[in-house]
Amino acid sequence: MRLVVAYDGAAYAGWQSQPGRPTVQGCLTAAARTLLGPATRVDGASRTDAGVHALGQVATVATASALPAPAVMGALNAALPPDIRVVRAEEAAADFDARRAAVGKRYGYLLDNGPVRSPLLRRHAWHVARRLDVGAMRQAARALRGRHDFGAFCAAPGRHASPWCTVRALHVLRRGQRIGILLSGDRFLHHMVRNVVGSLVVVGRGARPPAWLGEVLASRDRARAGATAPAHGLTLLRVLY
Amino acid sequence: MRLVVAYDGAAYAGWQSQPGRPTVQGCLTAAARTLLGPATRVDGASRTDAGVHALGQVATVATASALPAPAVMGALNAALPPDIRVVRAEEAAADFDARRAAVGKRYGYLLDNGPVRSPLLRRHAWHVARRLDVGAMRQAARALRGRHDFGAFCAAPGRHASPWCTVRALHVLRRGQRIGILLSGDRFLHHMVRNVVGSLVVVGRGARPPAWLGEVLASRDRARAGATAPAHGLTLLRVLY
Repeated sequence: MRLVVAYDGAAYAGWQSQPGRPTVQGCLTAAARTLLGPATRVDGASRTDAGVHALGQVATVATASALPAPAVMGALNAALPPDIRVVRAEEAAADFDARRAAVGKRYGYLLDNGPVRSPLLRRHAWHVARRLDVGAMRQAARALRGRHDFGAFCAAPGRHASPWCTVRALHVLRRGQRIGILLSGDRFLHHMVRNVVGSLVVVGRGARPPAWLGEVLASRDRARAGATAPAHGLTLLRVLY
Repeated sequence: MRLVVAYDGAAYAGWQSQPGRPTVQGCLTAAARTLLGPATRVDGASRTDAGVHALGQVATVATASALPAPAVMGALNAALPPDIRVVRAEEAAADFDARRAAVGKRYGYLLDNGPVRSPLLRRHAWHVARRLDVGAMRQAARALRGRHDFGAFCAAPGRHASPWCTVRALHVLRRGQRIGILLSGDRFLHHMVRNVVGSLVVVGRGARPPAWLGEVLASRDRARAGATAPAHGLTLLRVLY
């Protein structure tokens, strides 16, 4: 079975199950096992970090149960806490693997760029008080589009078979005091989106010129990129198949 | 002094001070008294209900202190909890009264109209699972624009000198699974915005035709309008002067 899952990551130590800590996979697995049997497995397309949100995480449910998908969705939502919701459920091929079958992901990052941190955005946006230059951020972003070695933006190079990724879209949009950064690509390295956002903010602040981002990318040196942007501004919007 | 205040209303029993309960006015007054002296008074333009949010509440600070407005803003924000923020502070005439001087208010109401309640909208939107007919809601809304006796949408007629209000704007907008209702007028009766929203949702659900809303208005009978929409979807956007 294939589930699309939305969650508010604030209360969770990320997607992946960890002993003794609340995780999204842990909650989903517990609910699914009660409903579908103790051997049920739930695996996600993306191991979102602690505090990261999702609107379109995709999970595979491997179960011997023959309960139809709509019934599973209703029963899981009745058992899950309100900050995790199954938003879609459908039958899938027995060998469907949400992680391996994915051909891309889309992330959104929200910045609160007002002089005073908004109480209504505080849980889902990184507050940067200094007015950011969105034009400079857009100019810098151009260097990252396409297929590159993203080692400079990877927190844990040992985790990945290759540092090569294709960024298909990278947009920076302002609406009032909110700035949204939309990033779409075939795969992402550990902390890559948050490191790209942190580096774009360095440019937006005027601390570095737009051309700096391309130099960081070319250097493949993690020490040169900006600081990792906080997790709570990041949302996994969609997994592409 | 004139403050513009934003808050997440979830943790508060509304704006107005009440003994033994957390309120926005209570928090602001406590912080202002520590800073500006024990006789300091903080009065708001609008007595928002328990759970209602604000991006642009306006408050008068009556104080004998000569501390300049920017210093007051910084010091108040350092003392206030993160769900209340002073977003602007400026000197005002000694007789400035945020409530009496107001010539209008603008409210926004957010509906989560997805089949499954979104974990990321759950604190700030009323979840209505059944797909609403926004066209019918817009058609119904027309009857409320202009100057009318809004007694049918008032929860506490005794509180107001007159039931007559002018609705200057009433818009219903859909973006994806979110529906925003924007309401602007010279004054609002007790629970009026939430009763208008509740009634628009009755029409959006198809339980009543669009023309019904005009009939409810003309009846001036509170028993005929829809149920009061929940507080947590409502935000006071702006007070007009």
